[in-house]
Amino acid sequence: MKEDEMNINKSATPPLAPELIEQFRKIVGERHAITDAADIEAYVTEERNLFHGRSPLVLRPGSTAEVAAICKLASEHRIALVPQGGNTGLVGGQTPHNGEVVVSLRRLDKIREVDTASNTMTCEAGVVLQIAQQKASDVDRLFPLSLGAEGSCTIGGNLSTNAGGTAALAYGVAREMALGLEVVLADGRVLNVLSKLKKDNTGYNLHNLFIGAEGTLGIITAATLKLFPKPRAVETAFVGLKSPEAALKLLTIAQGEAANALTSFELLSEMAVDFSVRHGIDVRDPLSEKHPWYVLMELSTASDDARTPLETILTRAMEEIVDDAVIAASLAQRNNFWKLREEMSAAQKPEGGSIKHDISVPVAAVPAFIEEANAAVVKLIPGARPVPFGHLGDGNLHYNVSQPIGANTADYLARWHEMNAVVFEIVLRMGGSISAEHGIGVLKRDELPEVKDKTAIELMRQIKAMLDPLGIMNPGKVL
Amino acid sequence: MKEDEMNINKSATPPLAPELIEQFRKIVGERHAITDAADIEAYVTEERNLFHGRSPLVLRPGSTAEVAAICKLASEHRIALVPQGGNTGLVGGQTPHNGEVVVSLRRLDKIREVDTASNTMTCEAGVVLQIAQQKASDVDRLFPLSLGAEGSCTIGGNLSTNAGGTAALAYGVAREMALGLEVVLADGRVLNVLSKLKKDNTGYNLHNLFIGAEGTLGIITAATLKLFPKPRAVETAFVGLKSPEAALKLLTIAQGEAANALTSFELLSEMAVDFSVRHGIDVRDPLSEKHPWYVLMELSTASDDARTPLETILTRAMEEIVDDAVIAASLAQRNNFWKLREEMSAAQKPEGGSIKHDISVPVAAVPAFIEEANAAVVKLIPGARPVPFGHLGDGNLHYNVSQPIGANTADYLARWHEMNAVVFEIVLRMGGSISAEHGIGVLKRDELPEVKDKTAIELMRQIKAMLDPLGIMNPGKVL
Repeated sequence: MKEDEMNINKSATPPLAPELIEQFRKIVGERHAITDAADIEAYVTEERNLFHGRSPLVLRPGSTAEVAAICKLASEHRIALVPQGGNTGLVGGQTPHNGEVVVSLRRLDKIREVDTASNTMTCEAGVVLQIAQQKASDVDRLFPLSLGAEGSCTIGGNLSTNAGGTAALAYGVAREMALGLEVVLADGRVLNVLSKLKKDNTGYNLHNLFIGAEGTLGIITAATLKLFPKPRAVETAFVGLKSPEAALKLLTIAQGEAANALTSFELLSEMAVDFSVRHGIDVRDPLSEKHPWYVLMELSTASDDARTPLETILTRAMEEIVDDAVIAASLAQRNNFWKLREEMSAAQKPEGGSIKHDISVPVAAVPAFIEEANAAVVKLIPGARPVPFGHLGDGNLHYNVSQPIGANTADYLARWHEMNAVVFEIVLRMGGSISAEHGIGVLKRDELPEVKDKTAIELMRQIKAMLDPLGIMNPGKVL
Repeated sequence: MKEDEMNINKSATPPLAPELIEQFRKIVGERHAITDAADIEAYVTEERNLFHGRSPLVLRPGSTAEVAAICKLASEHRIALVPQGGNTGLVGGQTPHNGEVVVSLRRLDKIREVDTASNTMTCEAGVVLQIAQQKASDVDRLFPLSLGAEGSCTIGGNLSTNAGGTAALAYGVAREMALGLEVVLADGRVLNVLSKLKKDNTGYNLHNLFIGAEGTLGIITAATLKLFPKPRAVETAFVGLKSPEAALKLLTIAQGEAANALTSFELLSEMAVDFSVRHGIDVRDPLSEKHPWYVLMELSTASDDARTPLETILTRAMEEIVDDAVIAASLAQRNNFWKLREEMSAAQKPEGGSIKHDISVPVAAVPAFIEEANAAVVKLIPGARPVPFGHLGDGNLHYNVSQPIGANTADYLARWHEMNAVVFEIVLRMGGSISAEHGIGVLKRDELPEVKDKTAIELMRQIKAMLDPLGIMNPGKVL
């Protein structure tokens, strides 16, 4: 699929008047208003080169007050804005497809406060996720949000897209890690509902409106985040088994035994493991024989002993559910297990075109989903190779389908939406979501009205009109 | 404080026309439209007799469709509605102060589905909390929401008020237990965002708007709730110590050692324990000597052993932090510990008037808050007796102040708002909340604009106007 097949509205935007550029420049200072096309390039393209936008102006504000001044000026002149964090989004939400002004939040990179007694950390939007994780670790705490792009994505982007990742099973998604926000509204008003409080029943819950809104309702400038006790022991197992049903049984045993100490439970198909071993750098299969399915599971405990509960789980499961299993004997071996998982996306590229689905279904429905979806995509395109893998504990699968061996890649990818439709029909019938982690952006905007409750869509439009009556906040995204 | 001192708007509502009563009656059926004043009484008064409302009509719909029809008809004729669950709210939110029609949700009492593989339960609004807990327990799961009124409060009321309770430390407040909702809007539209999904990033988060909105934005008719593994071991300790600072240190040790297995951590002042022992039925102090402060803490583990981590915590704390401690040796002893805590509110009544504050501050600020507040209330009313107790792990205190010995109760209670002002000033300076658990209702409505971010209040009013343009949903509450 190419960008021009996505129905992105590319209607002409009037060029930004030089006087206006000058006014914006005054807000952020000479150095932080970028108009040079070569310098702008990094803000209008993204890593996979799936989206390519254009913009006359990138603003890099250094404070909430500057963001507020930008929004106020933009409102007065109906100038459309695209907020951007680390520019790692996967659905084109951070790209100015239509000549909008980019507001990069990366200079808002202060950690305003760390409070170990209250277990909170107040970060500005531009703090890189890995920096936030490190800061928590420095004070013997855990900030558990963890995902592939953590070296460059930002807290503001994580919250705007409600990021998920590999630790959501125990700690929840990004939404559940935020106690409060500071948000600049379209008209420049600053909403301050930063809070360290776990209990506060004074009026409507406002901050959750902005989390996951992908910058269409306002610009998140800071957040109060929860910190957790740092686990003292981590143990990781790589397990071979016969089916997703067996994996689901193992999950039930593991949750019964370890509850929230079960911090990861990743289901991997044989093909996903094969590709990763074949194409990944320094990736090995930890088990001596092949299995139709694998589980990568991890326990993290407050006590010194995560080994005993992990062994108890595997022992209980070994007779009927698990065919083979190995527990990482060292940190290096643990990293190897995870490398196999982390290389999985990249390892699909050498196998040709891959049509991707970021879906979730109720956990109980995952085995049935895989069975039905596998049959349906092969029926649609004989020889297509499903490569499912993902977070079974959250019911969230990256249901990617590689092209038939020897097929023409462009022809295969041209059927992206057609295959989506087949897969999404099964997802929806099972009460699932067509975007579990990555959001809507422009990539799934056209599908949204078809998959969402009609009244929910109406309310979303009402909320958008209420908070952004001029339609200047990240236009053309989500709705 | 009496109801008439609360500035409740008691302006005359035009009487409900008999034809309209007939139309409402047709929706719910003869038996479920109550117009007899004696039968209505139970819906317009509440247990503590602090609020006394009036209503010409109580409707008891039996389905979401009936609730929708009621709202549609009410919209067409601008009839104000007050949704009600178990009628156990503490801030007058469920009372028809001004002749509104009461919509009792208690007949919506079906548990629509329990899914042990997905760990979810879909309950209608009128399901009594204790029934939901029992249903979860029957399938070897835990529904952790737990509070004093659990025998009569309902899931709909719990969510509308975002109830807290004693297990919020590990499991969060009611909001965090809901994956999705079914809500009837003011105009009768039904919003269906019920969901079993932990990860779903398709558009704006709508259900959190209605949680904690106290029925002013719509009527919650059903919810998908999270279930948790049932703990296999529970151990409870009663601890004597010198100060809130010591309790905070103990909390830090306990969370470091037990993480989420620390399911309760209640701080109790000497006077709160004294009152409970003196006036509670079958209440004894588990420790042989008196201490200035006490902690009731509980560990609940997925494994069979909660004893070892609890003993580890107490051993680590025994030298400098804890002066004495006893671990419950039996279920009966554990129940005795909790009885002492549960009788605490009732035990304040025989001591005369009590001015109450349901506040939260950042956990780290609790000791400073207690010190400052105690000094301030005694300065305001010499001889006043602070009786603080509550959920230290959440920074949530029931900061109740009993009258001076021998003082006139009415004179003392007449200073309710005056004392509130003194206490709330300290709360706000520390970044706290004037309503941690109980909500705003009518009791704190006048204070809300003073304590909340100005832009937040503006947004709340915009949202109210958007969702309830005629102002028929629980008018006069919250805003």
